[in-house]
Amino acid sequence: MANVQNIKGMRDHLPQAMLLRQHIVGVLTKVAERHGFEPLQTPVVEYAELLEGKLGDDEKLIYRFEDHGGRRLALRYDQTVPLARVVAQYAGQLSLPWRRYAYGPSYRGERPARGRYREFYQFDVDIVGSASPLADAEIVAVLTEALAELGFPGFVTMLNHRQVIGGIARVSGLDEAAAGGVYRAIDKFDRIGAAGVREELLKMGVSLEAAEQILALVQIEGDPADVLKELSGRLGDDERAAKALENLRAIIGALADMGVPPERYRVAPRLARGLSYYTGMVFEAVTPHWPEGSLLGGGRYDELIGQFAGRPIPTTGLAFGIDRLHDVMQELGLGPRLATPATAYVTVFGPTEVAESLALARELRAGGVNTLISLESGGLGKQFKEADRKGVRFALVVGPDEVARGEVVVKDLRSGEQRSLPRAEVVAALLSG
Amino acid sequence: MANVQNIKGMRDHLPQAMLLRQHIVGVLTKVAERHGFEPLQTPVVEYAELLEGKLGDDEKLIYRFEDHGGRRLALRYDQTVPLARVVAQYAGQLSLPWRRYAYGPSYRGERPARGRYREFYQFDVDIVGSASPLADAEIVAVLTEALAELGFPGFVTMLNHRQVIGGIARVSGLDEAAAGGVYRAIDKFDRIGAAGVREELLKMGVSLEAAEQILALVQIEGDPADVLKELSGRLGDDERAAKALENLRAIIGALADMGVPPERYRVAPRLARGLSYYTGMVFEAVTPHWPEGSLLGGGRYDELIGQFAGRPIPTTGLAFGIDRLHDVMQELGLGPRLATPATAYVTVFGPTEVAESLALARELRAGGVNTLISLESGGLGKQFKEADRKGVRFALVVGPDEVARGEVVVKDLRSGEQRSLPRAEVVAALLSG
Repeated sequence: MANVQNIKGMRDHLPQAMLLRQHIVGVLTKVAERHGFEPLQTPVVEYAELLEGKLGDDEKLIYRFEDHGGRRLALRYDQTVPLARVVAQYAGQLSLPWRRYAYGPSYRGERPARGRYREFYQFDVDIVGSASPLADAEIVAVLTEALAELGFPGFVTMLNHRQVIGGIARVSGLDEAAAGGVYRAIDKFDRIGAAGVREELLKMGVSLEAAEQILALVQIEGDPADVLKELSGRLGDDERAAKALENLRAIIGALADMGVPPERYRVAPRLARGLSYYTGMVFEAVTPHWPEGSLLGGGRYDELIGQFAGRPIPTTGLAFGIDRLHDVMQELGLGPRLATPATAYVTVFGPTEVAESLALARELRAGGVNTLISLESGGLGKQFKEADRKGVRFALVVGPDEVARGEVVVKDLRSGEQRSLPRAEVVAALLSG
Repeated sequence: MANVQNIKGMRDHLPQAMLLRQHIVGVLTKVAERHGFEPLQTPVVEYAELLEGKLGDDEKLIYRFEDHGGRRLALRYDQTVPLARVVAQYAGQLSLPWRRYAYGPSYRGERPARGRYREFYQFDVDIVGSASPLADAEIVAVLTEALAELGFPGFVTMLNHRQVIGGIARVSGLDEAAAGGVYRAIDKFDRIGAAGVREELLKMGVSLEAAEQILALVQIEGDPADVLKELSGRLGDDERAAKALENLRAIIGALADMGVPPERYRVAPRLARGLSYYTGMVFEAVTPHWPEGSLLGGGRYDELIGQFAGRPIPTTGLAFGIDRLHDVMQELGLGPRLATPATAYVTVFGPTEVAESLALARELRAGGVNTLISLESGGLGKQFKEADRKGVRFALVVGPDEVARGEVVVKDLRSGEQRSLPRAEVVAALLSG
């Protein structure tokens, strides 16, 4: 057998990683449901034609195959196209606006690299069928609650609007055709700095004057209301930019009304975020503790979800990348660091004490303590070692002496401390750690 | 666009179904972790060769394809072969015996039918690397706790052992070659009855005397200890059957010590359960409230998990079929019947009350009430209708009068009752239903 291994870029998640991943998904689910988002699960496999004609060059990354009936199928590339399909297919059963969340894997045949996987898990949160700035603000509120509850320190959501960047290009005298290049240059600001962006803009044929104006505009910083005011002064004559700024003002107002802490968001006119997909607000969450890139991002995309329904369906949302969140939390030491779900390991003293050990394990479980029962036929020393290897905190012994006294020996494998407790007190002792 | 639909046999799970499915998976996870089982997640895609050469005729059901590098890949067929791969691949990191659970989809290109899907979700619970009857008993204990906590009424786990059926065939004078047919005939007992099985056995060339003896043996019923005693008297001269009965006796003993209620299991010598795969204990859980078939089953399979590791690794386990459990619970009216995760729908009285409504929604969420905020620009009537359509229980109003009085109007959409409450009392009122 040649290949007893996983496929490169498609990972096995062993228990320790899974416990953190499940914690993340649990928090995201709780926050999403708190806002009334409803779960949706679509198949991993779709008709290939549904995915085709949307991705340009990236279409070659789709995993495609034929089924037993010769139908052309594909592994889903994201959870957005399936959402668009569901919205069209079940139009009669779904009432819009619809808040839906979805958790699952998607597939892209990319070259695997640090943080880039061929099978990756996303937790998507979208509000389908509302153009209201309240919907945009709620997405940012969900993001803020989720990252806070996951324990991320110092994170900030950078907010912008597609037509703010469009306006910046236009008031700098550039036409729509040139705007795409400008977005891409600005998008690199945090990596290559002002000088780097200036150079890129000049190389594209943008005049020095226009480049300086663009750079001045995208570097406006400060309190969101001030930034919006300043941008309004500079972009106010561009009708679309003025509307975009009005929209951002409404979103910022709703964030304050929703109680999102003001230190958690900023207006950042230099945030570009792959603008072809988005039509309104865009955002990315970043933290100085993770300078390698954003934690996640999202925005409003009013043209994608209605594609199969045949009518515009305004939508705003975000995708939490579970792999990214896991890797960053792992690196920063956030979240519970569990080796195993069990807190207690009940040893088996000998063949005649099996029943006592099983009864003790049952009492512990009934008391809310996740408990392993030893299957190891060796002596106590071997069993303590196994408990330690599994990462269980407490090893328990009920030998003949303990049975006679109605007690249990509790060994804390972290401290090495060992004590004998009345059986009725064991659960409380383990739960209090 | 021709095919804006899901692939036949691969289902979309809309919110109402998903809420029940998530409830099921949550209960199974809790029970598994209570016993110290650890989560494992493997990719949906495996190298095709890992799956091949094991399934006989069924191998044609595997979804196979080539990736961008020409590697032959396949969608996993179950979660057992991936477990065998993981046990071989990470031998150095895993300490056996290992209790692992795994939840996810598998794929088979079967003809879709009622209860049979091409994408199906399983929750697997296995103890890898232990031949102890304690391990077998723990699998049955997990099954019993899970079905009880899911609310299944009157379920019973039917227990048997591969070598009990083998012994029945042997003491009836049949050789190993004939035994397979005998298993298959006996397996149909509950569907075709004693007369049907007799007919099948005779058709296979089994003598009438042998057929009668087989039928007498497989129909032994009663208290597990009595059934085992009776079987021992009849099969005791067959060495393998005697060992199997000893094994079942130990499992039954452990079940009692583990506190599994005696009405929850029986020894059923007629349970065959596709015996080629299993090597020891086999079981199926059934309930008279669902006469169509078993709820789920499992057993000991000592030869499969070591296939890639190159050494025998005794393993016992079961798979909960989430689709089956969902469908049965749906049919029997078990589990929570939620239309949506939200309990409250906060209306927006008018543009000047948006901030009040957002603040109220925030208070409710902080108090533990999942809350939708209206995105509907129409009047209150339209908003009440939307809340009702979403399946939310309570619609709340904070109009100018309520703001002035510090109150909130709470409308119970189930009873139609409407009352005005002091704002500070709203959370408690909603939580108490």
